Amino acid sequence: MGEGINRQFLIAARPSGMVKESDFEYHEAPIPEPGEGEVLVRTLMVAVEPALRGQMENRADYAAPLEIGDVMRGTGGGQVVKSNHPDFKEGDLVTGQLGFQEYFLASGDPLPIHPIPNGADIEAALSVFGGSGFTAFQGMLEIGQPTEGSQVLVSGAAGAVGTIAGQLAKIHGARVVGIAGSKEKCDFITEELGFDEAINYKTEDVAARVKALFPDGMDIYYDNVGGEILDIALDNLAMNAKVVLCGGISRYNKSGPIPGPVNYFNLVYRRATMHGFIVVDRVHKFGEWAKIMAPWIAEGKLKFKTDVIEGFENLPKGLIRLFTGENTGKQLIKIADPN
Amino acid sequence: MGEGINRQFLIAARPSGMVKESDFEYHEAPIPEPGEGEVLVRTLMVAVEPALRGQMENRADYAAPLEIGDVMRGTGGGQVVKSNHPDFKEGDLVTGQLGFQEYFLASGDPLPIHPIPNGADIEAALSVFGGSGFTAFQGMLEIGQPTEGSQVLVSGAAGAVGTIAGQLAKIHGARVVGIAGSKEKCDFITEELGFDEAINYKTEDVAARVKALFPDGMDIYYDNVGGEILDIALDNLAMNAKVVLCGGISRYNKSGPIPGPVNYFNLVYRRATMHGFIVVDRVHKFGEWAKIMAPWIAEGKLKFKTDVIEGFENLPKGLIRLFTGENTGKQLIKIADPN
Repeated sequence: MGEGINRQFLIAARPSGMVKESDFEYHEAPIPEPGEGEVLVRTLMVAVEPALRGQMENRADYAAPLEIGDVMRGTGGGQVVKSNHPDFKEGDLVTGQLGFQEYFLASGDPLPIHPIPNGADIEAALSVFGGSGFTAFQGMLEIGQPTEGSQVLVSGAAGAVGTIAGQLAKIHGARVVGIAGSKEKCDFITEELGFDEAINYKTEDVAARVKALFPDGMDIYYDNVGGEILDIALDNLAMNAKVVLCGGISRYNKSGPIPGPVNYFNLVYRRATMHGFIVVDRVHKFGEWAKIMAPWIAEGKLKFKTDVIEGFENLPKGLIRLFTGENTGKQLIKIADPN
Repeated sequence: MGEGINRQFLIAARPSGMVKESDFEYHEAPIPEPGEGEVLVRTLMVAVEPALRGQMENRADYAAPLEIGDVMRGTGGGQVVKSNHPDFKEGDLVTGQLGFQEYFLASGDPLPIHPIPNGADIEAALSVFGGSGFTAFQGMLEIGQPTEGSQVLVSGAAGAVGTIAGQLAKIHGARVVGIAGSKEKCDFITEELGFDEAINYKTEDVAARVKALFPDGMDIYYDNVGGEILDIALDNLAMNAKVVLCGGISRYNKSGPIPGPVNYFNLVYRRATMHGFIVVDRVHKFGEWAKIMAPWIAEGKLKFKTDVIEGFENLPKGLIRLFTGENTGKQLIKIADPN
């Protein structure tokens, strides 16, 4: 055991309905001491994503389930404080599943941490060059495959994945409409990110606007939300359309049976396909995809947006913000500054 | 106008709930006289399919909608009685959208009729070498693509499409389970058609049996029915599974909103895809597909089953039988013998 305290948030209860702060338990553990081949990492920043909610509940089979008393899961960016491994030295910046805690002990072969290249941005590593960016890449470019003039609708368009997915479609010449939950978000995606149109689902008649904006139907619907908006999209598909099922955030805080998409049979009438995917399957492609995206970022064609709140104590709040719709872009929680 | 009477069934009402005989109106028209380039065909046999129900209601956009007073649509096999076109002569057997009537006037360029090759079987032309067989071919072989050891579930397995789809998967080395609605149908698909297992959805716990028969999930679900069975399949998908949406017969006689598949999000967890298709898009492939299937039929690997009832007056009843589950294999209504 090392000296000092490792502050953590454990899972106190499986969430029922909206995830809440009391589903987490503050805990103090000793800072672990790295053994042979191990590396101790101090967490600087934690990234949260909607899928974590399902893992807490253990409903989905997205990933290894979480149990009551486990340290809450979360991708983080951190700094090596002590290394007994030749690939890492004190001060190195890394990413990994650090969790909702101040210190993470990396052990195993290979070590479950990845270096952030010198000079690279930790926020970029946790957003556009992290799970969100690669999810958008796989869903939009490998599955959706927009080309010049493709008609594309993105829901959750101001979120971590939606912002990137929409811009990737724009880069490939598509016309992109985004759905988001406030005037500020709608202005952001059109004015800052170059989306062609935005629909505010909280104040507008989404069905009417989708129909008006896609008179000949949409070629790609990139779904981050599920629910009623998925049904509206299914009602406005072009022939041979693709529905990219990325997420279903409207579902995650609901208990009991959630209605399915009543318009699913339009897939037949429109000769359309609906594709499920999870980006962890394509981890071997991440390096290649990062190389493709880097010049777009350098040229200003692909912007990444982070939404950073500060303080270890705000980790649960950061996760909750995803479901209340408070965040724009990738939700990050800053825990500490690097040395 | 020619002499004599052309008996017809017109659409009298858009069906509400179960399609019924009073949705049709018996009508007598004069037998038409073929003009320049036209061909008069006498209907010998009519084939019916579930999609006709949706076309009567004009709910779907499967095909050109039908209007009240139109002759009811239906693919038929017939014989040329008078030809003013060099490609057809009196006595030739043909297929086409003859409709629920005794005589059909083929006009236009190209003529909407296709020769049945000499010696070919009119029942084969209306089943395995017709829409049902080609639908099964496209759905199972182009989309599903079973290979050696694929785990395949077919619903509506004793129907016109299901019987062929299941056998096509067997020919490619798959293990095939069929779901049907009577002991006789279950025995037929296992004993006569070589399906590995059958589930009687009227007497068995389908969810429990599907789970038991696919402990590692299914690779292909060929869906002819929709509804609860689609949800059961979605709950038992293997990784990277394909759901082939061919039909939704459980839906066709329902009014109002029909629940969607509550388990659709399992497509994400299982990285699965759901494919809609309609075979008319692939009409240019039919000749090639027929050449592929013909040797399998000759070798006894692919059997086609027809369910023939007799009499012009029984045309509406033939359609209704599809929804009451009375038919096994392709439902045909014989109107007349060839000369």
